[in-house]
Amino acid sequence: MTKINEIARDGNFKRQINNFKTPFGDEPDELLVEANRYRLLWAPVCPWAHRSIIVRRLLGLEEVISLGTADPLRPNLDHIDWAFTLDEDEQDPVLGIHYISEAYLKADPDYTGRPTVPAVVDITTGKVVNNDYHELTYYWETTWKKFHKAGSPDLFPKHLRTEIRALNDVIYQDINNGVYKAGFARSQEAYEAAYDGVFARLDELEERLANQRYLFGDQLTDSDVRLYVTLARFDIAYNTAFRVNRNRIKDYKNLWGYARDLYQTPGFGDTTDFEAIKLHYFISTTIDTKTTVSKILPKGPDIADWLSPHGREKLNKK
Amino acid sequence: MTKINEIARDGNFKRQINNFKTPFGDEPDELLVEANRYRLLWAPVCPWAHRSIIVRRLLGLEEVISLGTADPLRPNLDHIDWAFTLDEDEQDPVLGIHYISEAYLKADPDYTGRPTVPAVVDITTGKVVNNDYHELTYYWETTWKKFHKAGSPDLFPKHLRTEIRALNDVIYQDINNGVYKAGFARSQEAYEAAYDGVFARLDELEERLANQRYLFGDQLTDSDVRLYVTLARFDIAYNTAFRVNRNRIKDYKNLWGYARDLYQTPGFGDTTDFEAIKLHYFISTTIDTKTTVSKILPKGPDIADWLSPHGREKLNKK
Repeated sequence: MTKINEIARDGNFKRQINNFKTPFGDEPDELLVEANRYRLLWAPVCPWAHRSIIVRRLLGLEEVISLGTADPLRPNLDHIDWAFTLDEDEQDPVLGIHYISEAYLKADPDYTGRPTVPAVVDITTGKVVNNDYHELTYYWETTWKKFHKAGSPDLFPKHLRTEIRALNDVIYQDINNGVYKAGFARSQEAYEAAYDGVFARLDELEERLANQRYLFGDQLTDSDVRLYVTLARFDIAYNTAFRVNRNRIKDYKNLWGYARDLYQTPGFGDTTDFEAIKLHYFISTTIDTKTTVSKILPKGPDIADWLSPHGREKLNKK
Repeated sequence: MTKINEIARDGNFKRQINNFKTPFGDEPDELLVEANRYRLLWAPVCPWAHRSIIVRRLLGLEEVISLGTADPLRPNLDHIDWAFTLDEDEQDPVLGIHYISEAYLKADPDYTGRPTVPAVVDITTGKVVNNDYHELTYYWETTWKKFHKAGSPDLFPKHLRTEIRALNDVIYQDINNGVYKAGFARSQEAYEAAYDGVFARLDELEERLANQRYLFGDQLTDSDVRLYVTLARFDIAYNTAFRVNRNRIKDYKNLWGYARDLYQTPGFGDTTDFEAIKLHYFISTTIDTKTTVSKILPKGPDIADWLSPHGREKLNKK
């Protein structure tokens, strides 16, 4: 497994493209929608994986798609991989693999990318068949409909699909991946551009959420899931480890209420492992990028409010 | 100049002892209290130096003790020193030195400690005569009284001296140096003990400041100066760079009002250089301790409030 380079010459972080994109569906060249055929591999730290786990839970797909959980810590620095060290004998009990890279190499012996979660593995072959987290939740929400539990929400309603996809793209560029662009930047300019993008978009969403409960009104959608996974990691990890520190989510009135609302909704909080998230971002991720972390000067926090009225002269006794 | 080791075997940071402690006074073996004889060397980033600069300003001693200002950035990683790179020809215009270590070596050719600010240099000899920041502000406040400007506050009133010294010791142990003990710790245990000490003491001071304007009531004292220098660096640097991240000063009602009150008082805000502070703690300090910074898991932030009421159900339109 060679180490791939995701840093451009100008210091920008360029995330690798996912390789396994065959869709689920009824066409001959599509992946069969079949109960108990697939194992979804994730790590609770990873926002890209987390979104597919939340949707799986919201739609009641737990009984037809099984779950393998990787350790929040990387095996070591030279081996960018996810390991099943939390399981007995340090291997996934269904697939019998120690590292997720094994399922990637079974699917493609020449695979040289970074092995990522989420990864859907066909249990009959042990091969990764889909790692396309951009589309994965849409499959759960549409092609997998026949397995949804009664009463489960419609997270991707037909009349909103275009708008949801458009908003999700914005959330991806500026927020989900925006924090990574800030944290992995190798130049001050690249970092600052990403930082500005993150907060400009959060400011906008703060407005959007002022008078409606969710991003599309009363109805919980796929977009809320995608925004949530970054909000849940923001104050605890990104704010410090990735230096997106103008302010915290907790400092936004609406976004903080919205984040707690989702956290307290079954499927969100119960799949959010704050301890694992902290461990990963500070111990594994920081080590991967130690040269960066030392050389970028944080833009925040905002210091203008040191000049705001304090009212303490009223405390004088005389 | 050898590199000294300030990390104990158990991972605790043990700050070096100051070497130049001759007091100012009238006794034959004391330092003469004389106008325009001394140059005070500082770096705006340094809390130990900052306290003596604030007091100098509050008491109007600027006209009798001149000031040399070092660069917030260390010259390089192997040379722990302070450099006069902000001055013309990169040397202090009065002392003609490039590095503060030169004044230390003039005073003691065998000096092997870390050369620190504040340092009081006798201009007639070019030697450091006092670097004892524990006592320095007390000298400004007492022995230097004849040079105080009319109307300047009594920061160290006789009837409160014992109490001020006792509180200052507590502020030093748990807050001023507490954040360094957290930031420079080389073991998780040492870090967590320091972190707990910092926040336990801040919580206590938050209470103390609920019904009085300053630490000793209506009267500004030396203790306020000592607490301020850490508060001013907390959210902008320590919270992230030293991982004291349970919460920020901004999250305390009274401490945040108190910090702004002082900041807006002449002598405090006008000697507080937030940009220099950020530069130093993130660029110079972090590099010095890069192995630490990667291996300690932050204890905060507090996540319990994710379960607090959010009230967003009221936004539902139906």
